[in-house]
Amino acid sequence: MDTPPAGSIAVIFLSGRSDADETGYATAAGAMERRAASMCGYLGLDSARGTDGVGITISWWTDRTAATAWRDDPEHERIRAAGRAVWYDWYRVIVTEVERGYAWRRDEAGPTSS
Amino acid sequence: MDTPPAGSIAVIFLSGRSDADETGYATAAGAMERRAASMCGYLGLDSARGTDGVGITISWWTDRTAATAWRDDPEHERIRAAGRAVWYDWYRVIVTEVERGYAWRRDEAGPTSS
Repeated sequence: MDTPPAGSIAVIFLSGRSDADETGYATAAGAMERRAASMCGYLGLDSARGTDGVGITISWWTDRTAATAWRDDPEHERIRAAGRAVWYDWYRVIVTEVERGYAWRRDEAGPTSS
Repeated sequence: MDTPPAGSIAVIFLSGRSDADETGYATAAGAMERRAASMCGYLGLDSARGTDGVGITISWWTDRTAATAWRDDPEHERIRAAGRAVWYDWYRVIVTEVERGYAWRRDEAGPTSS
């Protein structure tokens, strides 16, 4: 997503993948993203995973209420449990509040701040 | 790093790599990480980049003062300028404050919260 507004919530999910069940993982990751996108207060999602198996996914939410509802969503919890059982060696979740941000793009004149 | 304390700062750097100058980029990324680690208030760094060229790097800082000093560091600014000139098609920087977090690891009994 673009620069989120101040006061919005970034849920940072860092994880180390096991080698197990690549197909099941990809299916679940897709389902997880669709589920998040269906929820109230969802702003977007950014994700990257390197060849070392370490991944970072950030989901962006309008406010704490929306981020908490995502944490407590039964479907989300079901997929998290499967992640602990099969796909992950470790993960860390850090909930943060956005203060400010800016974006730069090669084909634009300069940075924009918020 | 492990779960950072509440009130610490996460500087989220999202970027799209151009294909240019892989060697120079790797050298600069290493220099950037060493530079950050040398600064006062540095807590750690997490990074992942997928095969699509999209990367997420999060640097963790004890407080706003430390994060601002990192933003204003001349060596950091020099590398950012090279990034705009050569390595990146786009990037976004979002500064956030840590509220809470927890960690899970397969070989431990359960999650720990902070």
